[in-house]
Amino acid sequence: MASKTPVGFIGLGNMGNPMAKNLMKHGYPLIIYDVFPDACKEFQEAGEQVVSSPADVAEKADRIITMLPTSINAVEAYSGTNGILKKVKKGSLLIDSSTIDPSVSKELAKEVEKMGAVFMDAPVSGGVGAARSGNLTFMVGGVEEEFAAAQELLGCMGSNVVYCGAVGTGQAAKICNNMLLAISMIGTAEAMNLGIRLGLDPKLLAKILNMSSGRCWSSDTYNPVPGVMDGVPSANNYQGGFGTTLMAKDLGLAQDSATSTKSPILLGSLAHQIYRMMCAKGYSKKDFSSVFQFLREEENF
Amino acid sequence: MASKTPVGFIGLGNMGNPMAKNLMKHGYPLIIYDVFPDACKEFQEAGEQVVSSPADVAEKADRIITMLPTSINAVEAYSGTNGILKKVKKGSLLIDSSTIDPSVSKELAKEVEKMGAVFMDAPVSGGVGAARSGNLTFMVGGVEEEFAAAQELLGCMGSNVVYCGAVGTGQAAKICNNMLLAISMIGTAEAMNLGIRLGLDPKLLAKILNMSSGRCWSSDTYNPVPGVMDGVPSANNYQGGFGTTLMAKDLGLAQDSATSTKSPILLGSLAHQIYRMMCAKGYSKKDFSSVFQFLREEENF
Amino acid sequence: MASKTPVGFIGLGNMGNPMAKNLMKHGYPLIIYDVFPDACKEFQEAGEQVVSSPADVAEKADRIITMLPTSINAVEAYSGTNGILKKVKKGSLLIDSSTIDPSVSKELAKEVEKMGAVFMDAPVSGGVGAARSGNLTFMVGGVEEEFAAAQELLGCMGSNVVYCGAVGTGQAAKICNNMLLAISMIGTAEAMNLGIRLGLDPKLLAKILNMSSGRCWSSDTYNPVPGVMDGVPSANNYQGGFGTTLMAKDLGLAQDSATSTKSPILLGSLAHQIYRMMCAKGYSKKDFSSVFQFLREEENF
Amino acid sequence: MASKTPVGFIGLGNMGNPMAKNLMKHGYPLIIYDVFPDACKEFQEAGEQVVSSPADVAEKADRIITMLPTSINAVEAYSGTNGILKKVKKGSLLIDSSTIDPSVSKELAKEVEKMGAVFMDAPVSGGVGAARSGNLTFMVGGVEEEFAAAQELLGCMGSNVVYCGAVGTGQAAKICNNMLLAISMIGTAEAMNLGIRLGLDPKLLAKILNMSSGRCWSSDTYNPVPGVMDGVPSANNYQGGFGTTLMAKDLGLAQDSATSTKSPILLGSLAHQIYRMMCAKGYSKKDFSSVFQFLREEENF
Repeated sequence: MASKTPVGFIGLGNMGNPMAKNLMKHGYPLIIYDVFPDACKEFQEAGEQVVSSPADVAEKADRIITMLPTSINAVEAYSGTNGILKKVKKGSLLIDSSTIDPSVSKELAKEVEKMGAVFMDAPVSGGVGAARSGNLTFMVGGVEEEFAAAQELLGCMGSNVVYCGAVGTGQAAKICNNMLLAISMIGTAEAMNLGIRLGLDPKLLAKILNMSSGRCWSSDTYNPVPGVMDGVPSANNYQGGFGTTLMAKDLGLAQDSATSTKSPILLGSLAHQIYRMMCAKGYSKKDFSSVFQFLREEENF
Repeated sequence: MASKTPVGFIGLGNMGNPMAKNLMKHGYPLIIYDVFPDACKEFQEAGEQVVSSPADVAEKADRIITMLPTSINAVEAYSGTNGILKKVKKGSLLIDSSTIDPSVSKELAKEVEKMGAVFMDAPVSGGVGAARSGNLTFMVGGVEEEFAAAQELLGCMGSNVVYCGAVGTGQAAKICNNMLLAISMIGTAEAMNLGIRLGLDPKLLAKILNMSSGRCWSSDTYNPVPGVMDGVPSANNYQGGFGTTLMAKDLGLAQDSATSTKSPILLGSLAHQIYRMMCAKGYSKKDFSSVFQFLREEENF
Repeated sequence: MASKTPVGFIGLGNMGNPMAKNLMKHGYPLIIYDVFPDACKEFQEAGEQVVSSPADVAEKADRIITMLPTSINAVEAYSGTNGILKKVKKGSLLIDSSTIDPSVSKELAKEVEKMGAVFMDAPVSGGVGAARSGNLTFMVGGVEEEFAAAQELLGCMGSNVVYCGAVGTGQAAKICNNMLLAISMIGTAEAMNLGIRLGLDPKLLAKILNMSSGRCWSSDTYNPVPGVMDGVPSANNYQGGFGTTLMAKDLGLAQDSATSTKSPILLGSLAHQIYRMMCAKGYSKKDFSSVFQFLREEENF
Repeated sequence: MASKTPVGFIGLGNMGNPMAKNLMKHGYPLIIYDVFPDACKEFQEAGEQVVSSPADVAEKADRIITMLPTSINAVEAYSGTNGILKKVKKGSLLIDSSTIDPSVSKELAKEVEKMGAVFMDAPVSGGVGAARSGNLTFMVGGVEEEFAAAQELLGCMGSNVVYCGAVGTGQAAKICNNMLLAISMIGTAEAMNLGIRLGLDPKLLAKILNMSSGRCWSSDTYNPVPGVMDGVPSANNYQGGFGTTLMAKDLGLAQDSATSTKSPILLGSLAHQIYRMMCAKGYSKKDFSSVFQFLREEENF
């Protein structure tokens, strides 16, 4: 194991932290950078090498994983004054696991390619829990010949590593999935609320939907109505899970992609606006299934 | 089998015809009525008794099934000049399998109860194929003590007979399911269309959605994109299946129920309007998954 | 003036009360009925005749105005056990100023016609203030030959009496106007909010909209942004004006009419859902322009 | 007049062409550039100076107007390889009349400022007709002290030149106006269509709306229903006017601005999607009031 070459890791936040630890568990020495030095402490104490810029990471590692909150942060990490591209080595493999606009991924890939290196987008699905247990799903876009190399690293952090096609398609797959998720979650919340108001027992209604054509992940695995399922955020006052703010962010990306490709997304667009309003009405830190609570009449009165 | 008492059947249309035949197969003599005499011919030739009004059905049978297209037709069959209520016998069991407004079901139930008889609403899910093969799902609302009696008959026509609660809840369950179905179908169509435009292969995208949180019946069992699945309407130019007009009708019922119970249904309402527009734009007889075709850019040019 | 024949008035609520008083001012003796006897007291003390049912009103007056909150109340007043139709005289003129479903107006008109009397729908636009000052607008549907007779009475209570066509078109005109009003109010609130967040001064933005193609009654006469105009509800914490609940009710009527005529109303339907949600979130008694406050980020936190 | 210093003009398309001509009429010598040399011919023949890049324009003129179709074109004209910024003189006044993302305007302003020059955004409202007759409205964002200088030139091309605030607010004002316009146009189309289906005469309904609270520019100045008004696109099979594609583009900018400022635009977003669909269904070259035709039942069958 000692013979493994080091892997660079940029962005040690809520998600990056446990992901990097899983790489360590698999014996990869790490070269670490985060804009917040505190985020690196834990790794330094564990003996990993902390450097002072993305460029320095690129100098010391030819495989780098980036895990950043927004498109702007990703562009900064790659193309900024002390970005990866300043010192990237030819043949390096750069994997971006941030969830960002697919057109930004494509842009970054072009710049990386000019330097003789390889860029892949590999956003994740699954939250902090899946990051800890190494059960993330990675949706990977990029040159197919490099997929095996990416898989070697991503497989340490996730149980599903799916090849999606050219650069940007990893982001595209994630965005499309999350848009459909948001739509079916709001739809489930509306249908459950309407049914309850029409006199149906929520557990029974869920059971009927789940054996019928209304069945979806939001109804059978993550039901938003308190009392219907155990072990989901709706059973715990919508704590934990996937925050409304994050869903609003992903729907913003879907909206941008739809606008730039001129694709009509009537429900997706409305779902975006609904999560946008929820963020403004005190739901930003609650799980996104709290839309049931938001729609429920007289909830706050 | 010869000892079975006759069952009344009112409404022998596309759905009622095969349903009635399944009752015959199970040995029930039928008392038949339809506003269109031609619809009764086949049954007359098979030796069943055809009468000339719903009232006459009620005179000769104390268990009656009604299967009619709209609330208005149902009200006419029960409360009309020659309706069931004119001659219904005390203790009769009247089962309405029409899909109508739950508030109309409740109204009918009250009138039936005044006559000393029992009313249950039992709308079906599953189309003409399921009606033929006896594999419908019945969602049943009414007094629980009478459910076993209803089940005896409905079990001849369907493989699932679900008790939903008080009168009207059968309709409520169906309406909620179909509203969620419409939402997730349009959502699936939007997500697949956006993904394709972003460069994803449709089959691969469907596979990714189906192993992720975007999974729903519309994505994994009835995918709306031609070429993704076999044996579904999208593989056959959207012929067969569940027509756009019927979906628009059910969404109209959901809308009415939501308005009268003051339940917000943002996506449900927009889904209703989308199917309404499709009906006006030449999609009325196509399967409701043709919303993918409707959304697709430049489809008609 | 003493020679004027009495006019029946049924429904002396917030609107009916000042309307009836304006008839008195014009010298019409009144025959009064309200389900709440307290509502009649004031008129009794003023010397008007109070009776104990709509039927009694019909017995004593051959011109009757009804002003009731919902379709159900109107049906009860006309067709109920002690309804107008029980004792209506041939040739009577019955004017319903309630805002109800146009199809209910048509239904009532048919029943009234069978009794040899005349029914007109004449819903009002303008609130309690306009009712007091006699400045309501009446939108009148019914037989054109009777319009002059209706105008004689309605002209005492309103400054605009508009003939709209056959029975039901008064309601239709009101519903269409209010639907468009709701849409342009929400649109104004969205545009003003977006502009403010993009750095525009609200007063300046309103001025620009009002000299451009975005101009509408909601932007130039009833601007929803506090500080832009004086003398409107937004200048007074959204007190007074036209309540959110009433707008939600009218949009429910628009929704029902659209569903029954199969007319697509995409924005109208969404506007309905937005006002529905506002009612549930504590805005029910505020003026409908408070949608600006509802949309505004972080307003409640 | 001969003493006037030359003005640069970049972008001589449908709008730029007549705008430039109005500057000529007011005696300004022009320095002309367009990526399509043919667009310059007419001006060359009229004796104006044509150069071969935006940089060359900047070398010869210290007041420049740009009128380009998209953000990308504007960025290219300013920051491209041969862009204005390559040769811009200190103290130059650069006025961009393109309709683009306000955040791009701000970005350009920053770069221009670094070169010691001044940038203002001044998008126009009013179409080709207004451009020809010099009756455009300009909404101007930028440093207030420079507004008078901008007004001198813009006043030759428009009858309204409105100062909106800091850089980007010109775009913001235009985007907000057009979003509200799109919403009220669709709302008018929905209300007119519903009213017609409920039995109202279109001209009468328009009259009622226009004297009531539903009044808006789309109902009283640009009514979308054929036969209601003369001299508007709806009277001419929706030819001329403001194309659906252009409206969809502006709504895309509104959407982007709303997403980046996290402003909820529920109706704006749905309006965007509706115009997006219309573009795909054969309406792209029709005036945006053709949404009435799009919504109308059975229009194409």
